[in-house]
Amino acid sequence: MVVSTSASYSLTLRVEMVNQPGMLGRVTSEIGAVGGDIGAVDIVRVSPERIVRDITVNARDDSHGSEIIERVRHIEGVRVVNVSDRTFLLHLGGKIEIAPRAPIKTRDDLSMAYTPGVARVCRAIAEDPSKVFSLTIKRNSVAVVSDGSAVLGLGDIGPEAALPVMEGKAMLFKEFANVDAYPICLRTRDPGEIVRTVEVLSTGFGGINLEDIASPRCFEIEEELQKRLDVPVFHDDQHGTAVVVLAALLNALRIVRKKVSDVRVVISGVGAAGVATAKILLDSGVGEIVMLDRAGIIYPGRPEGMNPVKEEIAKLTNRDGLRGDVHRAIAGADVFIGVSSPNVLTAQDLRSMAPDPIVFALANPIPEIMPEDSIGLVRVMATGRSDYPNQINNVLAFPGVFRGALDCQATTINHSMKLAAARAIADTVGPNELNEEYIVPSVFNRRVVENVSLAVASAAQKTGVARRTVKNVPEEFAEQ
Amino acid sequence: MVVSTSASYSLTLRVEMVNQPGMLGRVTSEIGAVGGDIGAVDIVRVSPERIVRDITVNARDDSHGSEIIERVRHIEGVRVVNVSDRTFLLHLGGKIEIAPRAPIKTRDDLSMAYTPGVARVCRAIAEDPSKVFSLTIKRNSVAVVSDGSAVLGLGDIGPEAALPVMEGKAMLFKEFANVDAYPICLRTRDPGEIVRTVEVLSTGFGGINLEDIASPRCFEIEEELQKRLDVPVFHDDQHGTAVVVLAALLNALRIVRKKVSDVRVVISGVGAAGVATAKILLDSGVGEIVMLDRAGIIYPGRPEGMNPVKEEIAKLTNRDGLRGDVHRAIAGADVFIGVSSPNVLTAQDLRSMAPDPIVFALANPIPEIMPEDSIGLVRVMATGRSDYPNQINNVLAFPGVFRGALDCQATTINHSMKLAAARAIADTVGPNELNEEYIVPSVFNRRVVENVSLAVASAAQKTGVARRTVKNVPEEFAEQ
Repeated sequence: MVVSTSASYSLTLRVEMVNQPGMLGRVTSEIGAVGGDIGAVDIVRVSPERIVRDITVNARDDSHGSEIIERVRHIEGVRVVNVSDRTFLLHLGGKIEIAPRAPIKTRDDLSMAYTPGVARVCRAIAEDPSKVFSLTIKRNSVAVVSDGSAVLGLGDIGPEAALPVMEGKAMLFKEFANVDAYPICLRTRDPGEIVRTVEVLSTGFGGINLEDIASPRCFEIEEELQKRLDVPVFHDDQHGTAVVVLAALLNALRIVRKKVSDVRVVISGVGAAGVATAKILLDSGVGEIVMLDRAGIIYPGRPEGMNPVKEEIAKLTNRDGLRGDVHRAIAGADVFIGVSSPNVLTAQDLRSMAPDPIVFALANPIPEIMPEDSIGLVRVMATGRSDYPNQINNVLAFPGVFRGALDCQATTINHSMKLAAARAIADTVGPNELNEEYIVPSVFNRRVVENVSLAVASAAQKTGVARRTVKNVPEEFAEQ
Repeated sequence: MVVSTSASYSLTLRVEMVNQPGMLGRVTSEIGAVGGDIGAVDIVRVSPERIVRDITVNARDDSHGSEIIERVRHIEGVRVVNVSDRTFLLHLGGKIEIAPRAPIKTRDDLSMAYTPGVARVCRAIAEDPSKVFSLTIKRNSVAVVSDGSAVLGLGDIGPEAALPVMEGKAMLFKEFANVDAYPICLRTRDPGEIVRTVEVLSTGFGGINLEDIASPRCFEIEEELQKRLDVPVFHDDQHGTAVVVLAALLNALRIVRKKVSDVRVVISGVGAAGVATAKILLDSGVGEIVMLDRAGIIYPGRPEGMNPVKEEIAKLTNRDGLRGDVHRAIAGADVFIGVSSPNVLTAQDLRSMAPDPIVFALANPIPEIMPEDSIGLVRVMATGRSDYPNQINNVLAFPGVFRGALDCQATTINHSMKLAAARAIADTVGPNELNEEYIVPSVFNRRVVENVSLAVASAAQKTGVARRTVKNVPEEFAEQ
């Protein structure tokens, strides 16, 4: 398997070399010879004898980075002054900060934003608690909450180590949807205590985004919080993934001209993402779903590796009572959705599928089967990676979903809102654009958030969970 | 008592009037006649017949504002189109927002700030948890935590209504000291639950600022949190006030040429501020303190209105075992510090004090005695108000205290650090500037934060509670 170089492993080498023709060529040739991908080359300092340059290189991973540095170190007449890792530099001091929305430069500013003026605003909220939405940050604020127990592909790394992910999420919320999200990493693993902590701290938040909490704990935490709070609680690993998978599937089915109700879908992985994906597919009319975990196809009462959540979903899926492994499940299936682990599928499995197979191999960073190994065997292939076509990325969903929910002051994010979000993502790809390698829009397409937020707010209003009517999202932005 | 007009009760009247000479004069005369203080006058629209203007007026309070509006409404040829309250306008949508510290405009940005690049940063913290300070927001972040039980002079208004104060505090932290503070209002009053909630959510914070929590609960919450957390926990109503009072007292004593160890101090109020003030004065060498609450002078075993905190402070004060009311306590005292309620003192009380009386009447908005009533009777007078000289304002302390503590990654804010902060505030007023009406610097004097933060970090290092050596605060800022 070939892993390509990436900006996420990007190094800047500060290199001092003899100032004579041909030196830069020697350095760049050596870097190229070991597969380093050179970006910018800048001059830092020049003297008649010596020249110092910054050379930015994308590597594949840590060991590849080390190999590149070693190679440059051994060139005669060249000294590596220092090496900085651009990803670590970006993280120094954290990735977000607080910005006052008005300056405090004079006594008048102080007397309006703080005492004594603020007291009138406090009294207004005390008299009418619903004013907390208009007179505080609540209407645009989301807590990104994690216990650090299931972080990316890294597993249980704890709340401190999870913080950079939650900060990253807060950046994305702001950049993509102008939502003010704040990362809160909890020093507890007890579901009851997580629920109570979030309930207690929820005053100033118009929504709660749960993140990277291990399954099956994540289900009971989300469910209990939804009962207790009157603002949306949304476990992104479940619903963000489910919404984008459904969007991608709707468009993939348009390409192969199959109906949602006619296809058989195999889902590998019965964690947060797998269960939520199964539920949204059932909600949107998929007739037949077979789910698998490490112990094989799940069915009610399976003797090993079950939990209450799996029992529940087992009752809603596997209509024909299949038993066995993934190879058994996938034979004749129209769609395979992997939210599990690397290299689950073989080429032979793809050959056993129904005509025009659709495969979403979403395990990260290494999919259930590499796109290279599926060439000619599937009609539509998608992964979670940015270096292949059709990236299934939660960033397509959560910013617009929360934007829409906050705009209408929704009390929850219900099924209708999730389905509306999926359809809005799918429909952002126009009929003339849609093809096997373009089933979801780019995450940088600003229309995604606009379309999703309007669709979500509209669905909230139709289902009676909106506290406020949204006429036009662009105006909303202007008002803020 | 005369209350002056203030920007905190500032209205903008949009007024349509007949476009003829003299009309504006009639409107402004009417406003002036009822004591409205006119600021900016802007033209919104003009036609040959009519002109629309925005007139900004400072009023004294709500009823004064209404009076002004009514007066203008009754002028012939004038129509009040609308009235906007500038303080409420400032609060619309909240006073702070989240700002990404780097843009996310490209796939490369995304791959460094979020997946896959962020995973390496997470792993680095998982391997060495102390790296959470350098690679996340923790090193510059403070939680401003309240349960809304003792907000300003408003009392127990609940967590929603307290939120504008905490947002205001976050603004001040950023504006004055570049500290990223986030408001967290808790939906519980149980001290044990407050402690545990703050402990659980503390991962991403380099410090905790407790705020507006009722006494005596606030003491046990702070003490327990200080035991459990390895970052500073600072109840600003206690220590912020105490630090600034000590700073003001040090300078007032310079003016009257008395020694700290020689003076007798009366403190009215045994809540958060009173107790902390007594403690910092004892720590800094004041020999004799007498404390009072509504039931009079406190002493060990007093039958009414005591609690464990009062019992403790009673043992450390009132050396001579005085009993009685404030009039008894103040006779012969050098210093009176009021953190209690309006109109506690009479002119006769001031006359009974030792020569060169120092009076800090800090009840807000109406002091223990109005400065007007003390003219000629005291040598140095201070209040908590911005409309008299010598404003004792916590804003002089908390930004620099936390800046210093964060810069050196202090594990706590100890007595030495508080004393250092007080001295730094006092010393920011130069010997040539110091006089009866200028014992503390302006809150807008940027040198206050610089001096306080360096003094605090230096004291932390000397007392062994710093995890990092601060060489120079301005460089620190540059590094960020």
